[in-house]
Amino acid sequence: MTAPEAIPRFSPDDRAEIGRAAGDLVTRMRRHGAGPDGSVTRLLYTPAWEAGMEELERWFEAAGLEVRTDAVGSRFARLAGSRPGVVLSGSHVDSVSIGGAFDGILGVIMAACAIRWLGARFGSPVHTLEVFANCEEESSRFAGNFWGSRALSGRIDEDELDRLTDSDGVSIGDAMRTCGLDPTRVAEASRDDLEAYIEPHIEQGPVLDKAGDDIAVVDRIVCIRGLTVVLRGAAGHAGTIPMSLRHDALAGAAEAVLGAERLAKEKGAAAVATVGSMEVWPGGFNQVPGAARFTLDFRHPDDPVVDEMEAALRRLLAEIAASRDLELHVEHRLGQPGMRFDERICALLEAACVDVGVRWRRMPSAAGHDAQLIGRLCPAAMLFVPSKNGHSHRPDEETDLSHIILGVEVLVQTLFRLAYLP
Amino acid sequence: MTAPEAIPRFSPDDRAEIGRAAGDLVTRMRRHGAGPDGSVTRLLYTPAWEAGMEELERWFEAAGLEVRTDAVGSRFARLAGSRPGVVLSGSHVDSVSIGGAFDGILGVIMAACAIRWLGARFGSPVHTLEVFANCEEESSRFAGNFWGSRALSGRIDEDELDRLTDSDGVSIGDAMRTCGLDPTRVAEASRDDLEAYIEPHIEQGPVLDKAGDDIAVVDRIVCIRGLTVVLRGAAGHAGTIPMSLRHDALAGAAEAVLGAERLAKEKGAAAVATVGSMEVWPGGFNQVPGAARFTLDFRHPDDPVVDEMEAALRRLLAEIAASRDLELHVEHRLGQPGMRFDERICALLEAACVDVGVRWRRMPSAAGHDAQLIGRLCPAAMLFVPSKNGHSHRPDEETDLSHIILGVEVLVQTLFRLAYLP
Repeated sequence: MTAPEAIPRFSPDDRAEIGRAAGDLVTRMRRHGAGPDGSVTRLLYTPAWEAGMEELERWFEAAGLEVRTDAVGSRFARLAGSRPGVVLSGSHVDSVSIGGAFDGILGVIMAACAIRWLGARFGSPVHTLEVFANCEEESSRFAGNFWGSRALSGRIDEDELDRLTDSDGVSIGDAMRTCGLDPTRVAEASRDDLEAYIEPHIEQGPVLDKAGDDIAVVDRIVCIRGLTVVLRGAAGHAGTIPMSLRHDALAGAAEAVLGAERLAKEKGAAAVATVGSMEVWPGGFNQVPGAARFTLDFRHPDDPVVDEMEAALRRLLAEIAASRDLELHVEHRLGQPGMRFDERICALLEAACVDVGVRWRRMPSAAGHDAQLIGRLCPAAMLFVPSKNGHSHRPDEETDLSHIILGVEVLVQTLFRLAYLP
Repeated sequence: MTAPEAIPRFSPDDRAEIGRAAGDLVTRMRRHGAGPDGSVTRLLYTPAWEAGMEELERWFEAAGLEVRTDAVGSRFARLAGSRPGVVLSGSHVDSVSIGGAFDGILGVIMAACAIRWLGARFGSPVHTLEVFANCEEESSRFAGNFWGSRALSGRIDEDELDRLTDSDGVSIGDAMRTCGLDPTRVAEASRDDLEAYIEPHIEQGPVLDKAGDDIAVVDRIVCIRGLTVVLRGAAGHAGTIPMSLRHDALAGAAEAVLGAERLAKEKGAAAVATVGSMEVWPGGFNQVPGAARFTLDFRHPDDPVVDEMEAALRRLLAEIAASRDLELHVEHRLGQPGMRFDERICALLEAACVDVGVRWRRMPSAAGHDAQLIGRLCPAAMLFVPSKNGHSHRPDEETDLSHIILGVEVLVQTLFRLAYLP
């Protein structure tokens, strides 16, 4: 790879301009779906989501970008180039329920600010630049996560349009119609003209914030696996069943919780394991638990390590069930292989970090992102900015404007090398 | 104490008669509140409860016993004696939701069969014998447990009549009115004429069944204590929060579950400790638990041992909270001191067991019973018959007829000594 020609660092005026524009867009977008507690709930195909998309369209148009809506409602804001091939950057516009003002939408805002800045300074690129304002990633209204990037990569099954319903029983197909979208045309959203994708996103964890780093170059999505576990013992009276005759399902589940925690710690800093939900039957304070149902979520950058973790967890569960004479049911809930991003784009992002002079690190993403879908269509990578205190999916989700500006500058440098240098 | 004069053992005809009568009454009573799964749900002041009480009244009247209804709806079936003072025996008529056909009501049936048999064989006693068909003990509809025996001992507060409501918001006072009872007269239920109380009951645990014993002489109710615990950590993304930076409330709770189990085992066979309920927030499979709320129920025959257990549990919780940097709230939920029954009545029950030739043992009750309230009014004790497989509060609750007959015979012997020998 020959080193790309560099562009100058942001001037104080550039930084001020980007800061104003990004800060203003964060403020304007957080109004769409705003809750009284500062939260944002912007679910797919709801009025708040539509209003948010329209707000973005107005901004894109004012910035001189050409806006297109695809078959599932994602928006693409185009700075046309002279040769074929599109360099895409952005993230999702939807939020979780009672979420914050940064997850997803900040990636759209950063890409929009970067591409507008490039167009204003350097005019038309060689390869077309597009902001991706993805309709949906969070699965908060419908269990259709990665809806927008799945549409882009032709991975939506026709039967999902009726099958996926929200909590009121509305199908995703009918929800599309309320937004003027035709569900029979979903296949038209797929693209084969992408040349590169860069997704800026908040970290959603505490690593950058704790370390005092400004940026992460994200070179992969970890392997994610999920199990649902049911342990069945014998319910009974909390007074009259002696300890020696109990088959307490919650006590077995408690061993599993601690065993999963121990296992993740043994597998090194990149491994995590979580029991996030726990239900107990019958659940009375004076009843020995007869059954417990819980989930196990475990992740590691390397698929074989996740295989080892799953085997170890299944062994542990079998041992617990045997030693307490409990019935064990384990169900595979979720399996998502790890995804390596494009090394060339990671290297470009790193070079940009060095040029801009930020404190940066490489890291994997332990959460799923659109880039793992789009990365199958074209070379892709991600850029993280810090989440204050590691908070995300909550009203107090926040990223400092100084980090947003640095992130936009790294993105500008990288998109320049991808789209302006032939 | 001089040894009381003995009465002959049951003849085969006596046994057959008692078996028929008791078995028939179990069958008739289980119809009132019957569920499709063989369960019984006979909640206080419901139509099923009223029908059950009327069924009992008819039986009592046919047996020549004089029936009286007290201010809270309990029935007393009287075999009048020649001197003052009443020897009472029975238990409660209400059941838990989706309970069985034996808990509570079997004690009424055994007392009824015993007193009818005594009246038929020996006529009027010296001291009046009464069957106690107690209106409520289970707290299944209203949180007013021991309603009937609290009324008997003048321990109902006037404000409870409006304050205690069922899940539909109906107050216990209004529920009384629907059964023709006047809540303003509750105080009239209290009694000062009781000379002795014997409560036959199913064990509700596996001890007799496992050991092959027929009868337990219950000489005390254990000390029962309950805590509600909340641990608060930090919720977060199951992928993005490294293990080393977590404050996982459920992991802390899991340590408490296992610590409580370990503690009870260390304190010997008479100690139990149970975490019966566990709630986790936010509860998503991909979220680190930010808070966990659970109950701790622990019991031992000796109050000082329960004090030690509480201190040890509070120490353990504080250690868990400190080591995981969790916020800890512990709330006292329930405190019921242990209750020793009357040694003279226990000795009479034991003598009867020896005379009848049953396999018996002394044991404490680790569940609460009416006898702990009535035992403050007069000398009292309990007699347990086995629960098959230790099951109770469930549809498959069962006690063999052979054990019921032996229990009635022990009760007959004991009531004879208490009521017929001056």
